[in-house]
Amino acid sequence: MKKYVYLFSEGNKDMRDLLGGKGANLAEMSNLGLPVPSGFVVTTESCLKYYENNETIDEEIVKEIFSSLEKLEEISGKKFGDPENPLLVSVRSGSRVSMPGMMDTVLNLGINDEVCEGLAKLTNNKRFAYDSYRRFIQMFADVVMGYPKASFERFFDDFKEKRGKKSDLDLDADDMLEVVEAFKENYFKLAGKAFPSDPKEQLLESIKAVFRSWNNERANVYRRLNNIPDSWGTAVNIQEMVYGNTGEFSGSGVAFTRNPANGVDEIYGEYMSDAQGEDVVAGIRTPEPINYLKKQMPEVYDEFVKYAKILENHYRDMQDLEFTVENKKLYILQTRSGKRTAEAAIKIAVDLFNEGIISKEEAIMSVNPNQLDSLLHPTFSEEALKNGKVITTALAASPGAATGKVYFTAEDIIKAAEETDENLILARLETSPEDIEGMNTASGILTVRGGMTSHAAVVARGMGKSAVCGAEDLNLNEKEKTITKGDIVIREGDYISLDGSTGTVYEGKLETTETTLSEDFNTFMSWVDEKRELGIRANADLPKDAEIAKKFGAEGIGLCRTEHMFFEESRIFAFRKMILAKDKEGREKALAEILPHQTNDFEGLFRSMSPYPVIVRLLDPPLHEFLPREANEIKDLANDLNISEAELNLRIKSLEEFNPMMGHRGCRLAVTYPEITIMQTKAIITAAINVSKENKKVVPEIMIPLASDEKELKYLVDIVKNEADKLIKEAGIDLKYYVGTMIEIPRACLLADSIAKHAEFFSFGTNDLTQMTYGFSRDDATKFLGEYYEKEIFEFDPFATIDINGVGKLMEIATEKGKEENPDLEIGICGEHGGEPSSVEFCYNLGMDYVSCSPFRVPIAKLAAAQAKIKRELN
Amino acid sequence: MKKYVYLFSEGNKDMRDLLGGKGANLAEMSNLGLPVPSGFVVTTESCLKYYENNETIDEEIVKEIFSSLEKLEEISGKKFGDPENPLLVSVRSGSRVSMPGMMDTVLNLGINDEVCEGLAKLTNNKRFAYDSYRRFIQMFADVVMGYPKASFERFFDDFKEKRGKKSDLDLDADDMLEVVEAFKENYFKLAGKAFPSDPKEQLLESIKAVFRSWNNERANVYRRLNNIPDSWGTAVNIQEMVYGNTGEFSGSGVAFTRNPANGVDEIYGEYMSDAQGEDVVAGIRTPEPINYLKKQMPEVYDEFVKYAKILENHYRDMQDLEFTVENKKLYILQTRSGKRTAEAAIKIAVDLFNEGIISKEEAIMSVNPNQLDSLLHPTFSEEALKNGKVITTALAASPGAATGKVYFTAEDIIKAAEETDENLILARLETSPEDIEGMNTASGILTVRGGMTSHAAVVARGMGKSAVCGAEDLNLNEKEKTITKGDIVIREGDYISLDGSTGTVYEGKLETTETTLSEDFNTFMSWVDEKRELGIRANADLPKDAEIAKKFGAEGIGLCRTEHMFFEESRIFAFRKMILAKDKEGREKALAEILPHQTNDFEGLFRSMSPYPVIVRLLDPPLHEFLPREANEIKDLANDLNISEAELNLRIKSLEEFNPMMGHRGCRLAVTYPEITIMQTKAIITAAINVSKENKKVVPEIMIPLASDEKELKYLVDIVKNEADKLIKEAGIDLKYYVGTMIEIPRACLLADSIAKHAEFFSFGTNDLTQMTYGFSRDDATKFLGEYYEKEIFEFDPFATIDINGVGKLMEIATEKGKEENPDLEIGICGEHGGEPSSVEFCYNLGMDYVSCSPFRVPIAKLAAAQAKIKRELN
Repeated sequence: MKKYVYLFSEGNKDMRDLLGGKGANLAEMSNLGLPVPSGFVVTTESCLKYYENNETIDEEIVKEIFSSLEKLEEISGKKFGDPENPLLVSVRSGSRVSMPGMMDTVLNLGINDEVCEGLAKLTNNKRFAYDSYRRFIQMFADVVMGYPKASFERFFDDFKEKRGKKSDLDLDADDMLEVVEAFKENYFKLAGKAFPSDPKEQLLESIKAVFRSWNNERANVYRRLNNIPDSWGTAVNIQEMVYGNTGEFSGSGVAFTRNPANGVDEIYGEYMSDAQGEDVVAGIRTPEPINYLKKQMPEVYDEFVKYAKILENHYRDMQDLEFTVENKKLYILQTRSGKRTAEAAIKIAVDLFNEGIISKEEAIMSVNPNQLDSLLHPTFSEEALKNGKVITTALAASPGAATGKVYFTAEDIIKAAEETDENLILARLETSPEDIEGMNTASGILTVRGGMTSHAAVVARGMGKSAVCGAEDLNLNEKEKTITKGDIVIREGDYISLDGSTGTVYEGKLETTETTLSEDFNTFMSWVDEKRELGIRANADLPKDAEIAKKFGAEGIGLCRTEHMFFEESRIFAFRKMILAKDKEGREKALAEILPHQTNDFEGLFRSMSPYPVIVRLLDPPLHEFLPREANEIKDLANDLNISEAELNLRIKSLEEFNPMMGHRGCRLAVTYPEITIMQTKAIITAAINVSKENKKVVPEIMIPLASDEKELKYLVDIVKNEADKLIKEAGIDLKYYVGTMIEIPRACLLADSIAKHAEFFSFGTNDLTQMTYGFSRDDATKFLGEYYEKEIFEFDPFATIDINGVGKLMEIATEKGKEENPDLEIGICGEHGGEPSSVEFCYNLGMDYVSCSPFRVPIAKLAAAQAKIKRELN
Repeated sequence: MKKYVYLFSEGNKDMRDLLGGKGANLAEMSNLGLPVPSGFVVTTESCLKYYENNETIDEEIVKEIFSSLEKLEEISGKKFGDPENPLLVSVRSGSRVSMPGMMDTVLNLGINDEVCEGLAKLTNNKRFAYDSYRRFIQMFADVVMGYPKASFERFFDDFKEKRGKKSDLDLDADDMLEVVEAFKENYFKLAGKAFPSDPKEQLLESIKAVFRSWNNERANVYRRLNNIPDSWGTAVNIQEMVYGNTGEFSGSGVAFTRNPANGVDEIYGEYMSDAQGEDVVAGIRTPEPINYLKKQMPEVYDEFVKYAKILENHYRDMQDLEFTVENKKLYILQTRSGKRTAEAAIKIAVDLFNEGIISKEEAIMSVNPNQLDSLLHPTFSEEALKNGKVITTALAASPGAATGKVYFTAEDIIKAAEETDENLILARLETSPEDIEGMNTASGILTVRGGMTSHAAVVARGMGKSAVCGAEDLNLNEKEKTITKGDIVIREGDYISLDGSTGTVYEGKLETTETTLSEDFNTFMSWVDEKRELGIRANADLPKDAEIAKKFGAEGIGLCRTEHMFFEESRIFAFRKMILAKDKEGREKALAEILPHQTNDFEGLFRSMSPYPVIVRLLDPPLHEFLPREANEIKDLANDLNISEAELNLRIKSLEEFNPMMGHRGCRLAVTYPEITIMQTKAIITAAINVSKENKKVVPEIMIPLASDEKELKYLVDIVKNEADKLIKEAGIDLKYYVGTMIEIPRACLLADSIAKHAEFFSFGTNDLTQMTYGFSRDDATKFLGEYYEKEIFEFDPFATIDINGVGKLMEIATEKGKEENPDLEIGICGEHGGEPSSVEFCYNLGMDYVSCSPFRVPIAKLAAAQAKIKRELN
């Protein structure tokens, strides 16, 4: 028969899945001989069963709970509900991983009128007994019954005021008794019945409340943001109460074994006299720094430091401890790995290795890859954040802080940049490739529409610029050049600030702080590089971006999107001429004008990235994206082309598409206009030849996007090879190049064996692959995905994290079939997922050769890759 | 070693793949003892090898050819290139299936100046010898060298005129000699060298020409239209010449063993005196009906009839024969199954069974399912087609002939219909759901944009109306209400005619003929129904369509698209109010107005289809499709809603999508607005209850579209079941209903096992599935698919025929996983492919329960299903 309840003595730290993190650690500490109040754990499986049974606790489990309670009575020598010698307990949630503040806790459970009097007599401390009772009533009403806490708190505050007492410490036993009576009365008003005096009823209701709290809204949101499955459930810890509220020599505290802000090796924490644990968190009084304890009760403090070191050494990680002192006796109530800043995480990892406590592998595993982001981008100073006036919070689309004057069109921001040295922010309804130059000029980008993989988000991440996207509640008027929301009106040239790491938009100018990378960071990354097998490349379109990528340690370019090159002012006209040409001859003439520019671009890229490979993707977006939209631009273009506006409008109209994402783009353009492919091949290979002649190693890889069929790919590979081989032969040099394809269409995955016959490499374009696999477009999905998260239909954003079951299945099929047909096939990923840690792990486990991500995510991807390898070694 | 050349005596009729149809049949007839000139076949594999070897014939194969030629010399007692006793041969193409007129033939090969003189002496018939020679020169120049035939023909015609001779029969030997000399001279002019006199060179060049003709443009187009793989190749038949051009008692003819137009059991054909076979086809003179031969040489005619019957009995099918009479001796040159009209095909099948010649299975297999289309729709009379002036030819989007006055908006055509009883045609750039009522009023629909599965095409097929779509070369101006192309101008109210079976658009009024279904048709279909296992349902949205479907034998409705119901004038306003409501309450109020209408619709449908099941799909299209687009309509709606135009425009704008196909539609609407689902469930179940109470059996199946995830589906299934169960309980009756999902997203296929946990049926939506799998939208793909066919990248239209390798693979995965999880799962298809014969076969072989197609394709799907079963039994 399955066991649903464990005494602490029956558990240990490796039973997190079943007992939750808190429960497992309480069991472990208990077994280590630390002073831990006794208790037992109702398992996470009981929680799942509770939901299976329509939110009731199974009879069998109820029996187990009460039988464990009896054992707890034996151990403690006290009796639940017995006024003579009452056992009081705390009831706390505890899931597999820590979800701080997300779920509920009840203290002092088991109390009622009689027990309270007994407790007073037993401890000879009436004030303590009544204080415990009033706390319990309020917590039970709030946590278990869901009644508003405010009505209790308001009474308590009014009461203090009426009595002229400043702090709860100033209230005496009689005051507290009066509060208890008033709280019971308030409870009766709210519930329509008396406060439950049966301790067993109190216990079961509280356990259910903890189970229910697994599914409260903030817990759901937290889980989604942290990729924690709904299916884990929470355990419930029932533990003998110890009391920090028995007087001057009692109290509660929390402390870290090292400084969580910077990693310095020191006890860092807070302590509050005559208080229960929740008071420290709730901020009823301001707690003292932990040094207060050192001064007041040095022997207790020393004992605490001793236990802290024991636990840090035992768990081989910085610990976050909760403790209570009851009449000078120390109890440890919780230990867990402490949350820390990225800076601290790195320092602690390096120090613990140097102290011989952990291995390099453990050091690597101890840092959360996503955290590194904050080290690589500017942030707002804490002071600034305190004073900043928030306008809205939307999608944290590209990390980092940015502050500057706002402009509403690419044209305006470019003009403004010529006249000022100040930082500028570009705000748009949405961005399109036409805005590239303006985005490049801006320090930060704000859009009203579009999701995490909208154009603005993707480009901003590539450029390492802060971006907040999808701020749908802002009323942005591009014509009038204003942003309004309620009373707030922002005009062109006003200051705004964006925090792309949190998605927050502020009014005014906030101070930013640049972070420099520490020596510890470099040491840490060198360990990561030692360990890691998976290659890491960057997505970069310009030599400037490639330089950044290389600085961060990228080993090549996994995706250069050539279309961005066409938008520069010097080329866009020629490119538009090409698009609007009536025949192949006209197109070839226009392409010939672009050729030297493209060649020049690629030379820069190859130089920056030498000796690493560079994957250049051939033209991908539909041609209409390159045409002007505004009437005055159309007029200008018609003039320049010497055709009528009507004719130009007709041509533009004829290029419109119902669903551009599924239209005439990618290699379909190349099939229709092979001359574009020929021009691009010429530019790539000529550039490679030129840079080779400078004695720099160049490895060009030419990538054909959006292929869905073997014959389609072969048709284009033949064109590329034919042109490339001709040029190389003419140059008389030895240049090895590769031709491959982006795998981003479900059909290409299903038929990867036939596709691999004609490809030397595959690069998964997981943005499009995710769109096609789910059948929704990244831009349009923002309209309904919110509802999907709320209703718990989706647990994560598939555009941020690879959907392993669906998209991942196709990737698996493609990898297997591709390698089977062509064992030398190089396989990588260049979608947005390439920089997301869990997706990096998935890619590594699929056997990919590399992942490619935006330059600023290279260290993150590297760390994720090293961790993936370590995880595999552990299994 | 592989054998590349076969003597007729080495082959038989079952070797079509290797010898081609013609070669296999020549071998068969030869072995049956029929008078067939001897010869040999160069195999289809030689053709493939020819292409593999960069268009050269392998040395080994050349050797085999000449060794077979020697054997032919032995058999015939003649010698190739020997003036004393010359062997002349014909060289003809012949692929696995007949591709009439698509490839090339050379006659009289082996002739040169000396051989010609020898032939004259030997036959004592100079005229015949020179006639043969001049024919060969022209054919060789045309077929082998690709020189324009016209220059030879023009000379021949001028020559006759100069000599005052009407027909080629009037030219004597000297005339012919003169023609030969002139032809040789002309050849020299064209080729820059003399006509090749080496018979072996003539032979090899001709064989190569036949191989090349496999890849000429008309052959490619024919193969694509008929789904013949490019990889089959053609065989080449080399056969001793017999001469129909030796005088009065010689001649050539073609004849069918039964009448190919109506199937009547009679010899039906044509005969031409003193002519070679090509003359009959080329129409140099008008051939006589075959009765001419009966009168002139009754014994030859009787012999022919005897052989015809032998062959028909042997092949157990109506035969199409070519024959030549050389000096009263009959030779059979070819036999093959004869092409026939649908009417004839049915009659012949039924007759041959009744005559005991074939089994029912063979009768069923003998009719091409696609052919039935012409029996089910009106057609233009032959007279009409001869005189019709073609404006353009575009996609044959929905079969049948329609003629009428043209109108350019739904509004106009509805108004016109009130004033006239004449047939009307609706012409639009493209149609949208708003046009439904106008489409319903029209007899035929013409659109400029959109492919075979565009809105216009799908709806027209559902309604059984003729449609021609994607006529991109027409300049259609909806505002000015004109169609122009070159000089042609069609104005509102002018007559045009559409042939939806060929895609042709005609100026003016063409006479149409209605076809009635014959007794034989009914007999035939009863055999089909006996044999078939696969269920056949129809896609129908209205009771009227359901009636037609039932008349054609549909066994249920596989897809009722409820959105069409919302466009009726009485509801569209309420529906728009629902869309534009500010909150749930407003939406529910508007939905309550629609509920009685929807209930009424479903009652009609259930009544029509009783006792068969009816699958109703919940609302699918994005909501913006239901909103007005024109300024004046927006103004009216704003007035009706009592809001400002600006506000309405803003709301409309906010519903716009980048890629509507991948946007907020299908079950994503239901997740956001469950109240729509609740209303539709109410309508469906209430209607089912009401019709059940009339003592009619009702089987409602509620289909949730576009699901991609287990939890998404479960969320909605729970809503539907909750509502449905409540209503059924309230009604106190016993009503079984089913809830299932449309499988149209790749992810749903990959995760079909988890999806099947919550679905009682799957219905493949292969339109969307094809779009997502290939990553292109059906409407946008028309812009580039043409190029894909031309460049032979695609061999068929994946929106017409299921792409078995890609889309089919996903269907296979989904079927296997779905049935594994839920063995009772009902599986069908409701995409456009459900009425396409090869796709029906694929579905049957996947183990589906039914296919669903437009009502007019039900007999086609039935026949395809019966044939699929027979094919499987044969394997």
